[in-house]
Amino acid sequence: MTSNSILTAEDLFKFIEKVWRYMRSITGDGVRLTLKDGKDLIPELEIYEIPTGTKIWDWTVPKEWIFRSAKILNSRGGVVLDSDDNNLHVLNYSEPVNKKLKLEALQKHLFSLPEYPSAIPYRTSYYERNWGFCIQHEARKKLLPDDYQVTIDSEFIDGSMTFGQVYIPGKVKNEILFSTYICHPMMANNELSGPAIALGLSSYLKSLNNYYSYRILFYPETIGSLYFLSRNLEHLQRNLIAGYVLTCLGDELTWNFMPSRTGITLADKIAKRVLERLKIKYTHNSFLMRGSDERQYCSPNIDLPVCSVMRSKYGSYPEYHTSKDNLNFISTNGLHESLYFYTKIIDEFESNRIPKLKIYGEPMLSRRNLRKTLGGGELSSDENLISNVIAYSDGHHDLTEMSKLFETSVNSISEIVKLLEKHKIIACL
Amino acid sequence: MTSNSILTAEDLFKFIEKVWRYMRSITGDGVRLTLKDGKDLIPELEIYEIPTGTKIWDWTVPKEWIFRSAKILNSRGGVVLDSDDNNLHVLNYSEPVNKKLKLEALQKHLFSLPEYPSAIPYRTSYYERNWGFCIQHEARKKLLPDDYQVTIDSEFIDGSMTFGQVYIPGKVKNEILFSTYICHPMMANNELSGPAIALGLSSYLKSLNNYYSYRILFYPETIGSLYFLSRNLEHLQRNLIAGYVLTCLGDELTWNFMPSRTGITLADKIAKRVLERLKIKYTHNSFLMRGSDERQYCSPNIDLPVCSVMRSKYGSYPEYHTSKDNLNFISTNGLHESLYFYTKIIDEFESNRIPKLKIYGEPMLSRRNLRKTLGGGELSSDENLISNVIAYSDGHHDLTEMSKLFETSVNSISEIVKLLEKHKIIACL
Amino acid sequence: MTSNSILTAEDLFKFIEKVWRYMRSITGDGVRLTLKDGKDLIPELEIYEIPTGTKIWDWTVPKEWIFRSAKILNSRGGVVLDSDDNNLHVLNYSEPVNKKLKLEALQKHLFSLPEYPSAIPYRTSYYERNWGFCIQHEARKKLLPDDYQVTIDSEFIDGSMTFGQVYIPGKVKNEILFSTYICHPMMANNELSGPAIALGLSSYLKSLNNYYSYRILFYPETIGSLYFLSRNLEHLQRNLIAGYVLTCLGDELTWNFMPSRTGITLADKIAKRVLERLKIKYTHNSFLMRGSDERQYCSPNIDLPVCSVMRSKYGSYPEYHTSKDNLNFISTNGLHESLYFYTKIIDEFESNRIPKLKIYGEPMLSRRNLRKTLGGGELSSDENLISNVIAYSDGHHDLTEMSKLFETSVNSISEIVKLLEKHKIIACL
Repeated sequence: MTSNSILTAEDLFKFIEKVWRYMRSITGDGVRLTLKDGKDLIPELEIYEIPTGTKIWDWTVPKEWIFRSAKILNSRGGVVLDSDDNNLHVLNYSEPVNKKLKLEALQKHLFSLPEYPSAIPYRTSYYERNWGFCIQHEARKKLLPDDYQVTIDSEFIDGSMTFGQVYIPGKVKNEILFSTYICHPMMANNELSGPAIALGLSSYLKSLNNYYSYRILFYPETIGSLYFLSRNLEHLQRNLIAGYVLTCLGDELTWNFMPSRTGITLADKIAKRVLERLKIKYTHNSFLMRGSDERQYCSPNIDLPVCSVMRSKYGSYPEYHTSKDNLNFISTNGLHESLYFYTKIIDEFESNRIPKLKIYGEPMLSRRNLRKTLGGGELSSDENLISNVIAYSDGHHDLTEMSKLFETSVNSISEIVKLLEKHKIIACL
Repeated sequence: MTSNSILTAEDLFKFIEKVWRYMRSITGDGVRLTLKDGKDLIPELEIYEIPTGTKIWDWTVPKEWIFRSAKILNSRGGVVLDSDDNNLHVLNYSEPVNKKLKLEALQKHLFSLPEYPSAIPYRTSYYERNWGFCIQHEARKKLLPDDYQVTIDSEFIDGSMTFGQVYIPGKVKNEILFSTYICHPMMANNELSGPAIALGLSSYLKSLNNYYSYRILFYPETIGSLYFLSRNLEHLQRNLIAGYVLTCLGDELTWNFMPSRTGITLADKIAKRVLERLKIKYTHNSFLMRGSDERQYCSPNIDLPVCSVMRSKYGSYPEYHTSKDNLNFISTNGLHESLYFYTKIIDEFESNRIPKLKIYGEPMLSRRNLRKTLGGGELSSDENLISNVIAYSDGHHDLTEMSKLFETSVNSISEIVKLLEKHKIIACL
Repeated sequence: MTSNSILTAEDLFKFIEKVWRYMRSITGDGVRLTLKDGKDLIPELEIYEIPTGTKIWDWTVPKEWIFRSAKILNSRGGVVLDSDDNNLHVLNYSEPVNKKLKLEALQKHLFSLPEYPSAIPYRTSYYERNWGFCIQHEARKKLLPDDYQVTIDSEFIDGSMTFGQVYIPGKVKNEILFSTYICHPMMANNELSGPAIALGLSSYLKSLNNYYSYRILFYPETIGSLYFLSRNLEHLQRNLIAGYVLTCLGDELTWNFMPSRTGITLADKIAKRVLERLKIKYTHNSFLMRGSDERQYCSPNIDLPVCSVMRSKYGSYPEYHTSKDNLNFISTNGLHESLYFYTKIIDEFESNRIPKLKIYGEPMLSRRNLRKTLGGGELSSDENLISNVIAYSDGHHDLTEMSKLFETSVNSISEIVKLLEKHKIIACL
């Protein structure tokens, strides 16, 4: 595969396997390595660093977390737990520790899931110093009274928060956003399917001669999207016509739609239109069930047109946020279906337009060879369609809506819109 | 009862009895005495005087009417009618007269109700000089040809129009209005029940640590509310969130809702919500059946959110505007029910809020101890509710609407709103 | 008939007969003669000239076309076709030609209707130089190989485009528009019925003491209405409350309603109200079926409240744009019905008002003798109606809507509106 061909679901699965072991977090080399591997696939992926201490509205970029290893040994030197086995074993953002502990003291720093005893849970402590280990509950139950040696080799430095962006300029400044996150260690559906699909869409977009501008964001969840919003809110409120949070896109079990807060934005309308056109059965979730960066994009005072289409939805499948959300939970076919769905979203935007008449009254069409010069007879169906497209280019009807109204294919209307744009009679959103 | 306890329906009935005999009108000492007795109960009641001749939009404050007595004697000196028996016997605002008249000449100055022969009607002539007597029709029919001596001892002076106001500042400038009138002599349901309930609500409000500011107005009907509006229109259009006209609140027969002109204001919404919550059966009147100061508050160009909940409605019960609308027509229980209803209106506003997020994006909750610092697990139901309240604090959802949406009690939401206000995350309307 | 009486359908039919033979086009003496005959009926008809070369948004006024005659002779000198027999025989705006041609060369310049062989079609070539003849298909089929002499005696000069306007000022600047066109040669339903009805309405309006101002336009279709719009757009967007395109009003076969683009303007509302009141069965066309100057009036960026009520609709009857749309296709009765309908439209506007309160609060009615000075009793039904009219004079309710709401006749409400206008309490749209 060269960097110019379109990434397939197989390529995306390989990418996920490649970056699987990196210790991702909201800062640190795990993120950098993940983005670097992404850049190998999409050279247009630009990587940025936001220094520790940067203010982001109500938030501040924390110190960067450097993690090397985490281990628990028993008094005989036997390995009870080793982060080399699974990144999830360490409480993410653990401070350094190196001490001997009795079992009951250790227990306070262990996290496990009694209701799911074979899974390692995923736990974090980004904004308060803490340390801990995540462990299968069945293993935890077998721990005997002993003196345990716990070692976490980590460090906090004045570093930075890393993020990536692919910006694909189009013919117009109006833009469409895909936002994904890169802060979860060793989980597949939530989250590596998200960055993988984002890379796939980037490669797809590069193959297009796109009309809209596209922005694909790879941020740590929450603080990352807040950083982006805080630096670009005016631009977005003026130019963003639709956006989608890419997450939970790797399995094949279900489809889920998470609307924007109002549920009536162009992003919602197009998502539902494509879901219906592809005859996909999906669950229409309430915004009350939100859980990812739509929380920021749809926040009061921000109110951007952003929603999400997912497969098995965060918070609603047992494997979520555990070691069981692994490479077996997702599949090449699941990635393929999700990629296909979002390329159809892009196609819908690219083939769609919201035209607006630029002149007053009907244009003089015959001098542009858009109407026969001979008058008095009936208009041809093409002439009629040109006339109708002009009459409804009021900035409110998109091509699909015109298609229904005129009982004509979107393609025919699209052709006419292009022609009228060329003649500077209309301009499109 | 001290001036600091909450007035009961019994207290209000006593107030009505006390002020019963004062000759109220749109000006004069009857109003002053009534307000003075009110001030004895609510010392915060401020009394104002608006001089004769003051311009009020299309109106002018008339001369003040001083009334002492009105009598008709027959030629033998026998008393035919004496205003000492009932204030209604004199045409309100009668000019002075002192002359002998034949019966047929007297007839032109008599007002009675053939269809309700035992009742003295209530008649006024505020803005044109006139004189007259209101009399039971059955008494009028018995009058024999004779020379009658008619005497009305009254006077018009450059005085003033008197009104009272209780203003109870709250934590915010946004205010709720209760408007009542004090210009009707010797009638109970319409009108003394109105000022009585207004005093009761004033005492109730004093017992609260109220959030909204409250304004309770005691004005002569029509010209009084117009005076108030003409001097405060901008303030009201900016800060008045709801208002109610207090009238016809003393009997126990029925309940009536008079909507605002549009019927969709916050005042309407809260009134109907409380009526329904209390399972009160009521008549939903058309605004065409309006009759009191909602005529001014809902006038085009004014358009304030003001409506009214009444018992037997003005204009719709036989005793209305007659001597039969007396102390027997109302009851302590009727006053009690009405007072209770309006305290529930106040409670609904006080327990309600319309929150608005003050920051951009989701706030950083864990540094305020509003979320556990440990991430990755499920949010607790409290954490979830905090997050939902923030997400819907868009300035359009009130607590009750959030309660329905989140399927949680208003109290739980209210607690969270208070917490978020304390943390300066949201502010409320 | 004097110029001061109301034109009858008979008068209009005579006018149509009189101007029948003039060679109308978008410019030239045919238009001038037609307008001059119109001015003989309505002296208020003002005639204007717009010079060749004048810019009109996307258009330019073309050279004026002077036409004298068009003929085809066969080699024996026999007349094959002569424009003296029918104006439609010449391609409108034909350039001069004088040459001998073989039949196959001539064929390229002949226009006929195979599907309607006895009719001469109507064809034009305003904006590209061309020449041609329109001929019955049955005659065309009989043409034998021969050398034909073709002569078109015409000329293009720097002249002007001619249009007419009757402006009847009313009591207010708000205006109602009737727009018709005068560019079609020798066709009756489309188009002479339009100018005829426009003259009839002008005479009707002159007989009224009209409240609204009326503008009746006689323009060449498309470029004429565009000229008018380009010079008056701001004025119209501020003052035009409704407009109607007058076309296809001479036959008796059907009724057709062509809505404005949005379908919800005051023009639509009143047209549908009158159609329903007169119990006229009509076809409600889609705006997609538009065909006359509503194309300009309802264009995006222009968006004026203009629609149309027609009889047999342009484009939908076989005789349309052929020599069969002649004086037999229309009738005095058809014109009479159409004239009657539009006078009812005018009556509806003239008897209608959209009142707006000019003062704040309720006015002081008794000092204007609009309410009895004696208060306390019930309002009379007139007093009540006055009060209701004032309360709903919010600039959104028209008399008919008030009539429904108050369950009273429009006339009663209208009387009260006049009274309140006289007293400067309300003003009307």
